[in-house]
Amino acid sequence: MNTNRQWLLAQRPQGMVGKDNFTYAEQAIPEPGDGQVLVRNLYLSFDPTQRGWMEDRESYLPPVGIGEPMRAGSIGQVVESRHADFAQGDLVQTTGGWQDFVVAAPGLGPMGLSKVPDGVTPEMMLSVLGITGLTAYFGLLDLGQPKAGETVLVSGAAGATGSVAGQIARIKGCRVVGIAGGPEKCAWLKDEAGFDEVIDYKSEDVNARIAATCPNKLDVYFDNVGGEILEAALNHLNLRARIVMCGGISGYNATQPIPGPANLMNLVTMRARMEGFIILDYMSRAPEAINELLGWIASGELKFQVDVQEGFDNIPDTLQRLFTGKNLGKQLLKIADPV
Amino acid sequence: MNTNRQWLLAQRPQGMVGKDNFTYAEQAIPEPGDGQVLVRNLYLSFDPTQRGWMEDRESYLPPVGIGEPMRAGSIGQVVESRHADFAQGDLVQTTGGWQDFVVAAPGLGPMGLSKVPDGVTPEMMLSVLGITGLTAYFGLLDLGQPKAGETVLVSGAAGATGSVAGQIARIKGCRVVGIAGGPEKCAWLKDEAGFDEVIDYKSEDVNARIAATCPNKLDVYFDNVGGEILEAALNHLNLRARIVMCGGISGYNATQPIPGPANLMNLVTMRARMEGFIILDYMSRAPEAINELLGWIASGELKFQVDVQEGFDNIPDTLQRLFTGKNLGKQLLKIADPV
Repeated sequence: MNTNRQWLLAQRPQGMVGKDNFTYAEQAIPEPGDGQVLVRNLYLSFDPTQRGWMEDRESYLPPVGIGEPMRAGSIGQVVESRHADFAQGDLVQTTGGWQDFVVAAPGLGPMGLSKVPDGVTPEMMLSVLGITGLTAYFGLLDLGQPKAGETVLVSGAAGATGSVAGQIARIKGCRVVGIAGGPEKCAWLKDEAGFDEVIDYKSEDVNARIAATCPNKLDVYFDNVGGEILEAALNHLNLRARIVMCGGISGYNATQPIPGPANLMNLVTMRARMEGFIILDYMSRAPEAINELLGWIASGELKFQVDVQEGFDNIPDTLQRLFTGKNLGKQLLKIADPV
Repeated sequence: MNTNRQWLLAQRPQGMVGKDNFTYAEQAIPEPGDGQVLVRNLYLSFDPTQRGWMEDRESYLPPVGIGEPMRAGSIGQVVESRHADFAQGDLVQTTGGWQDFVVAAPGLGPMGLSKVPDGVTPEMMLSVLGITGLTAYFGLLDLGQPKAGETVLVSGAAGATGSVAGQIARIKGCRVVGIAGGPEKCAWLKDEAGFDEVIDYKSEDVNARIAATCPNKLDVYFDNVGGEILEAALNHLNLRARIVMCGGISGYNATQPIPGPANLMNLVTMRARMEGFIILDYMSRAPEAINELLGWIASGELKFQVDVQEGFDNIPDTLQRLFTGKNLGKQLLKIADPV
């Protein structure tokens, strides 16, 4: 292979993101400079927050420019190294983007460059030990501060972040209720992930079901979706409840701003808190989280699912799967196997 | 006087509260039991949160019952004491309600019973040293945690709570911007209360004016109003901003739920926090606050305004003044002078 296949951002999405927002291109393979390595991307990570990176607005990262490869986290293999800490063949994590090859270095891009620990698969590194797992870990524990015996509600509960957040809450001794869409996801949450109760938002009255499944009300709400489900959760806060604002996927593809919850004043009467966070702020503490997550995986307490699509051509459609709810667990796409 | 005049809650308001929600009554003067005192009300306190007490819904206090005297904080004078700590003639603070006489005791009702310190007037005790002043003090300092050099935005800034919150922020070395309605309130904030900038929401584009007056964005937003002004403030958050949710007066008289801000996700990108509180939780710490507030009043650093209406007949209309923005500073009504 002597070309670098790419999917470039062609136009900013209005409404649902799709293949027409991107254009295929082929470039020469880039060359690493001193202190850099050339990485061949093997697995791409798909995350709801990537939809926000496509918008031309101020956020926690600059927008992807029109004509640039779409930004995405990745696991790859070092093809050529000009950095003493990395050797040809090393499996690494970086911000590879939607392309075959990327020049990477520690400190370059939001994910920098780091080796995948021995014994960890790309699937694990991009899911339960990656951005989504760390988001669950630090969001739940640092902002949610769950205590044994408390009730924790998680939306987007079958997603890569929500499923880990709910299981950590269970491990910490909480009663855990998950909200997800469809019987397959709900069954996985109850049967595999050990959630105490599950609410299927596609077929059930979420507000009534929160009341029924959370008789002691909510001490922590870990929110991945925003919108109507956030409003329903706000109706059932316990005193000094903590709402961890992780994401708002229900609004990411909206063409018009979606009004917020009409019952925000419940935060006042219940002395409650809503707090947002960005996982990039916690990356220096990633090792402690990864260590604890690995222990829970080894003991069988923490389960995870990955949904691995394949094929370079399918990259744009795979991003859309997140917003149509098609993914079961962490959405990945495999470009190539390691050599 | 041998009757107890009262204004009773006659029906729960739909929309704007007004005189037709109340009915006038006369009762026999009640008799205090052992450990209780009979208090004659002199000054009544009017607070936006009283509107919420009229609703039949779960909140931080039970709703006022139909046929009960409307609940309100008050300063009164002990007429008859059967409690060793109180003597006839003492000026006291309690939850007198909309009536001439009330039986009160320490621990009875949300405000209990406490003596007004020597040298403190009823106006001071019901404003800058009372619930509204304490709300400003603990809300700003405990939840807002302002640091010198930060920017603090206050809505309802000419109100009893907002004006104190903004001045405390100024005393703590912050740049303070206030939002109020009309030139008279705005002039008082700049000329008397020492706010750095003032936004007149009745005549100015609040969103644009926040941008213009807060070039370093908002570190603290002390919110008394909710609604569109909250949404505007959310557009200008600094990293790790704190939104102190004190109240949402813009929605208190709404007949339909008012949608919340469409930009709540800014809390995520800015790692920001919204937190509610109820001042009753802080009453054990009131002495420390009163002591510090008295010092700032004595030094001239803290100004306050009271709007004292008169006449028992005017009690219901006086509550409405809060929601039509007629009050300049803390809204009180004087029923009688001390004897």
